Amino acid sequence: MCNACVIENVKQSMMSRRQLFSGAAATGAAAIAAGALAARPALAQASGKVVDLTHVLDENFPTFDGVPGIAYEEAVNFDSSGYQLWKLTIFEHSGTHIDAPLHFSKDGTSVAELAPETLICPLCVIDISAKAAEDANAMVEAADVEAWIAAHGEIPEGACVAMHSGWAAKVGTPEFRNTPDGSFAFPGFGKSATDLLAGMNVAAIGVDSLSLDPGNSADFAVHNSWLPGGRYGIENLANLDQMPATGATLFVGAPKHARGTGGPARILAVI
Amino acid sequence: MCNACVIENVKQSMMSRRQLFSGAAATGAAAIAAGALAARPALAQASGKVVDLTHVLDENFPTFDGVPGIAYEEAVNFDSSGYQLWKLTIFEHSGTHIDAPLHFSKDGTSVAELAPETLICPLCVIDISAKAAEDANAMVEAADVEAWIAAHGEIPEGACVAMHSGWAAKVGTPEFRNTPDGSFAFPGFGKSATDLLAGMNVAAIGVDSLSLDPGNSADFAVHNSWLPGGRYGIENLANLDQMPATGATLFVGAPKHARGTGGPARILAVI
Ligand SMILES: [Zn+2]
Ligand SMILES: [Zn+2]
Repeated sequence: MCNACVIENVKQSMMSRRQLFSGAAATGAAAIAAGALAARPALAQASGKVVDLTHVLDENFPTFDGVPGIAYEEAVNFDSSGYQLWKLTIFEHSGTHIDAPLHFSKDGTSVAELAPETLICPLCVIDISAKAAEDANAMVEAADVEAWIAAHGEIPEGACVAMHSGWAAKVGTPEFRNTPDGSFAFPGFGKSATDLLAGMNVAAIGVDSLSLDPGNSADFAVHNSWLPGGRYGIENLANLDQMPATGATLFVGAPKHARGTGGPARILAVI
Repeated sequence: MCNACVIENVKQSMMSRRQLFSGAAATGAAAIAAGALAARPALAQASGKVVDLTHVLDENFPTFDGVPGIAYEEAVNFDSSGYQLWKLTIFEHSGTHIDAPLHFSKDGTSVAELAPETLICPLCVIDISAKAAEDANAMVEAADVEAWIAAHGEIPEGACVAMHSGWAAKVGTPEFRNTPDGSFAFPGFGKSATDLLAGMNVAAIGVDSLSLDPGNSADFAVHNSWLPGGRYGIENLANLDQMPATGATLFVGAPKHARGTGGPARILAVI
């Protein structure tokens, strides 16, 4: 296929989505900023390689408050019934999971109400692993966003911007939550960065650590501004080290239970 | 963009996936038939329209056994803490959800172990709504699969083949589970169809009703053959009436909890 056609294909795909979303914005959920709907999944560019950005959730997966995120109770036994299933107890914010606006705003958008169009989006990965190796509470700052744009170009409207700090590799160790001296510490976003991203109509931010805000945050500044603005977050992402800085398409398999403030999600990327 | 380029683009996408999956099959989970890995998401064809095939799950969503599928307990209160979240109790097979092989085989593949490549797949929709309107226990039979192929061409390897029976429109009414005289009844797949589909290396089947087998099934013939064969199912799909018979790409946001026999999933389609 000729390169001119590849580029034309992508442009047409973007254009048809813009038309779609300008219509959707007129009639869609008011809680989501109109611009955030203008997701532009670069599907036409896909090579077809699927990468799973989701950790396996079990009783040992680290949680923010230290309480196990999931518990299992046998509901149907295979030997007696010929099939089997679990009754699960799940704290919504466990494993690789979504933070919906409702998590930090009393009457915000629930996870079930997120516009489906915002769940398939271009993925931009900002690598702060070098500074996170020096400072466990390192943040993605406005300057990191600006450096990313200088290197890779504009951040598409409707994108998910993810922090790659290297923390996913620590998930089975105490260092996922704590420094060696025991203080609560992990990387996250700084409000300087998320304020900038909100102005670019980014749909979501994602982190490979336990929280959108860094471990030493006193005020949850990012949770308290990003989420009430009608945008969502993804925490505990896996395998961001396998992602290009730009060009992948993210599929966000957010749960859809009524009144949900978030919940365990299946996150896949197509490169 | 020229049509020749569109077609070439699709072909290249399929080819690169075949190469990818022939490698994946050599090293991948033995429980999944090698052919089932050869998913061919027609991403390059996408117009970009996203359709949500997921029902909202709440306490009133109909279940197979009549027990509510989800319960909510307040874990953190907004007024006292400035944020909020639920502790959820969820029976795995509730709402729009996955049946993993482990549901009907003692040591089968869990929902967390499904190959990620099988979760993004071409969607083929078989419409049996005309016969389901006459018979609440109507089935997709081998003849329906053959008629679909005659009309729409080969079923791609790695596809999800979904039954559209019209049942999603009944979800808020007693008729979703029962005939007016109170007998348990809804459409499903017949084993003649799923045996044929297994031979075509289809990855998954989906239904817009409560179960892969019809309501009057005495032996769960489809559950007992399709799932232990290393393939998965999707139950309670929504909005299949908005899907073309062929050409859409399905994104299956299956949950990823360890040892899961299935669970509520977010299912999105891109047309
Ligand atoms: Zn959270
Ligand atoms: Zn089921």
